[in-house]
Amino acid sequence: MLIISNDDIESVLTLDVAFKALERAYLDQARGRAVNRPRSDLYLPGVHDGSIYAFKSMEGGLVESKVVALRLNSDVIRWEDRESRIIKQKVPAAPGKKWVGLIQLFSAETGEPLAIFPDGVVQRIRVAVTSALAAREMARKDASVLAVFGSGWQAGAHIPAFCAVRDIKKVNVFSPAKDNREKFAQQMEQLVGIPVVPVPSSEAAAKDADILVAATNAITPVISATWLRSGVHATCVKDCEFDGETLRRADRIVIHSRNFAPENYIAGCGDQKISAHDPVDFIRGNKSIAVDDASPFWIDSPELKDVIAGSVPGRTSPEEATCFINNIGLGIQFAAVGHAVYLQAKAKGLGKEIPTDWFLESVHP
Amino acid sequence: MLIISNDDIESVLTLDVAFKALERAYLDQARGRAVNRPRSDLYLPGVHDGSIYAFKSMEGGLVESKVVALRLNSDVIRWEDRESRIIKQKVPAAPGKKWVGLIQLFSAETGEPLAIFPDGVVQRIRVAVTSALAAREMARKDASVLAVFGSGWQAGAHIPAFCAVRDIKKVNVFSPAKDNREKFAQQMEQLVGIPVVPVPSSEAAAKDADILVAATNAITPVISATWLRSGVHATCVKDCEFDGETLRRADRIVIHSRNFAPENYIAGCGDQKISAHDPVDFIRGNKSIAVDDASPFWIDSPELKDVIAGSVPGRTSPEEATCFINNIGLGIQFAAVGHAVYLQAKAKGLGKEIPTDWFLESVHP
Repeated sequence: MLIISNDDIESVLTLDVAFKALERAYLDQARGRAVNRPRSDLYLPGVHDGSIYAFKSMEGGLVESKVVALRLNSDVIRWEDRESRIIKQKVPAAPGKKWVGLIQLFSAETGEPLAIFPDGVVQRIRVAVTSALAAREMARKDASVLAVFGSGWQAGAHIPAFCAVRDIKKVNVFSPAKDNREKFAQQMEQLVGIPVVPVPSSEAAAKDADILVAATNAITPVISATWLRSGVHATCVKDCEFDGETLRRADRIVIHSRNFAPENYIAGCGDQKISAHDPVDFIRGNKSIAVDDASPFWIDSPELKDVIAGSVPGRTSPEEATCFINNIGLGIQFAAVGHAVYLQAKAKGLGKEIPTDWFLESVHP
Repeated sequence: MLIISNDDIESVLTLDVAFKALERAYLDQARGRAVNRPRSDLYLPGVHDGSIYAFKSMEGGLVESKVVALRLNSDVIRWEDRESRIIKQKVPAAPGKKWVGLIQLFSAETGEPLAIFPDGVVQRIRVAVTSALAAREMARKDASVLAVFGSGWQAGAHIPAFCAVRDIKKVNVFSPAKDNREKFAQQMEQLVGIPVVPVPSSEAAAKDADILVAATNAITPVISATWLRSGVHATCVKDCEFDGETLRRADRIVIHSRNFAPENYIAGCGDQKISAHDPVDFIRGNKSIAVDDASPFWIDSPELKDVIAGSVPGRTSPEEATCFINNIGLGIQFAAVGHAVYLQAKAKGLGKEIPTDWFLESVHP
C-alpha cells in the first residue's frame, strides 16, 4: 500500500490531470457507471471548550476505473463571528499544529487498499476544477474578466483553473484584509501571467466582471444579486455564499449534487440525522433552533454531470445570467482525482510502500 | 499511529474487556454521550462477473473516551442459492486469499489517527457480546439450555459469551452439514467445559432450549415460531433469521438500533439511496423488484441501550417469550471495543508504530 505526501501529490497533480479525471468521472456518473455515498458529519460536543470535534466522510466508486475512494476529515472546528460574517475555522489540533484529512483508495477488483494520502492538495484542486468545468459549459465564450472574492487557498486554485477554460485577460480580487488581497494578487499575477488587481470593495471587483467567483470560508452570503447582470456567470464553493435573491435572478442554475446538505449526527440528539450545512446554531447551544432545513428551491436544478454529458445545456444565449452552485463535495471527485494521483505516483516511483498485508485479514470479517 | 494485527487483538480482547467496553458504550448512548453514523453500503456492479464489489462503512463516537471509530469493509460479495436458502458469501479476493475489513480509531481531542487494525476479531466478539448483554437483561434467570443454529465463526463466539451471562448446563448445536456441526460441537465443548451436543435437526436443537441463538449467514429465516415457547429468549445476528410470525408471537422485543437497514448506494441507480438489508434482487438483475423496504413492524421496539440503562425492562415475568433483534451493527461498538483494544495494545507494547505525521497535513484540507 502506498502512502503519498502532499508534496508528491503537488508534483504530479497538474490541472490537466485533474480536468481529465473529473470530466471522465462526471461522464461516468451520467451513464450510471459511478456512485456516491453522500457526505455525513458526526459531531462530538463536549470534548472541547469553545470548539467541537467533527468527523466528516464520503465515498465514491468508479466502475471503469475499478476503484472506491473514502475521504475523511477528523477536525476540531471553531465558528467565529467576524466583521458581521460567521467564519468556520478548522483548528490545526494535531501534533505539529496540523490538520487531519485523508483519502483512502481501494481496489474494487480485490478489495485491497491501494493508497492513503492527505486530502489537502486534492481537495483544493478538485473544488476549483469542478467549478471551472461548470464555467467551461456555462460562462460566455468571450468572458474575459474574472472577479474573485476571497484570497485563501480555494481562491488561489480557482484563478488558474478558470484561466484554463476561458481566455481571461484580467482578474479582480477582493477580500476584506488589504494586506491579504494585495499579497495574494501579486502571487497570482506571477502564476497566471495576466493582471490580477486587488480592489478595495466587492462592488469594485464585480463591476466589470464576466465571471464572479466566491471562494471564501464565510458561511453567510458573499455575492450580491445586483452583480448578476445579463451575460454574467457566477460560481461558489458553498451554496451559502449565494443569497436567495441572486439565485432567483439567475436565468439558469446548475448544481453539483441534489444531495444538498450533509447528514449530521450529533451526540446528544439521539441517532437521528439532521440535514443542514452547518448545524452551528444547534451546536452553539441554541437548541431551540430547528436545523432540519427544508430543501432549497434550487435543489431540482440540473446537476453538473448532466451538463458535462450534454443532456442539458449550460447556456443557451449570451444574455443569460447563470449560476453554478458547487454546493457539496462528492466522493467520485476523490475517486477520480485520487486514482489519477495514485497512477502517477506509481509510474514515477513516488511515495512510501508499506506492506498491504498489514491491512488484510484471514479472519472472516 | 499503531497498526495492530488480529493475533495481537486476540491476545488482549477478552470477553470481560468486550463486555465492559460495550456496556459502557450503551450507557453513554442512552445519556446522549455517544453517536453513530449508520452503516452505508456502496455497490459497484459490473466490475466482477457473478459477484459484486461492496464498500461498507459506519462510524461511532464516544464523548467520554474522546474517540471516533470508522469501520469499513471492502468486499467482493457472492450470493449463492443453497439448500433452499440464500447464502451471502464474502469472497477472499485480496492477495493471499484474504478479506479487507478495517477499524480506524481517531482522537477527538487532536483529530489524529491513533490506530488501524483489521476488524475480524473485534467484529466477531462485538456481535456476540452485544447479544449476550441483551440476553443478560432478557433471558430467564434460570435459563440453562442453549440452542445454537449455525457452526461458523459467529456461532463460535456466541457460546462463550452466553455462558458468561447465564449458568448454561448444555448447548444444542444444529447446522445443516453433519461434519461441520460435529467438529464445531467438539471444539466448543473443549472451550466452555459443558456438554455441547450436535443434533440432526433444528427442531431437535430447539426442543428443550431456554435460549435460541441464530448465528448463521443465511438471509432467510432460521428460527420457527413454534419454538418460541413461554419463557424462551431468542436472538439473532441479522433480523432476517427471524420470520414475522416468530416476532409477532414474542411478548417483548428489543432491537439493537432503529436504523433498521443500511443505506445502499448502487452504481446505475443514480445517487439515490435504497434502504434494504440485502438489495440482492436488484443486484442480481431483477431490476423490477422494489427493494426500498417499508420499515418492519418491530422498528419502534425499545433499543438495547434503553434496556442496558434500565429505562425499559428486558423481561417482566418468567413466562414471557422475548426476542432480541441484533438487526444492524453500530459504529459505537467499534469505537468502544476498538478503543479498549488500542489501550491494551499500547499498555502491552503490541503492534507496529508508524509515523503519525504521514497522516497529518499542513495544507488546509
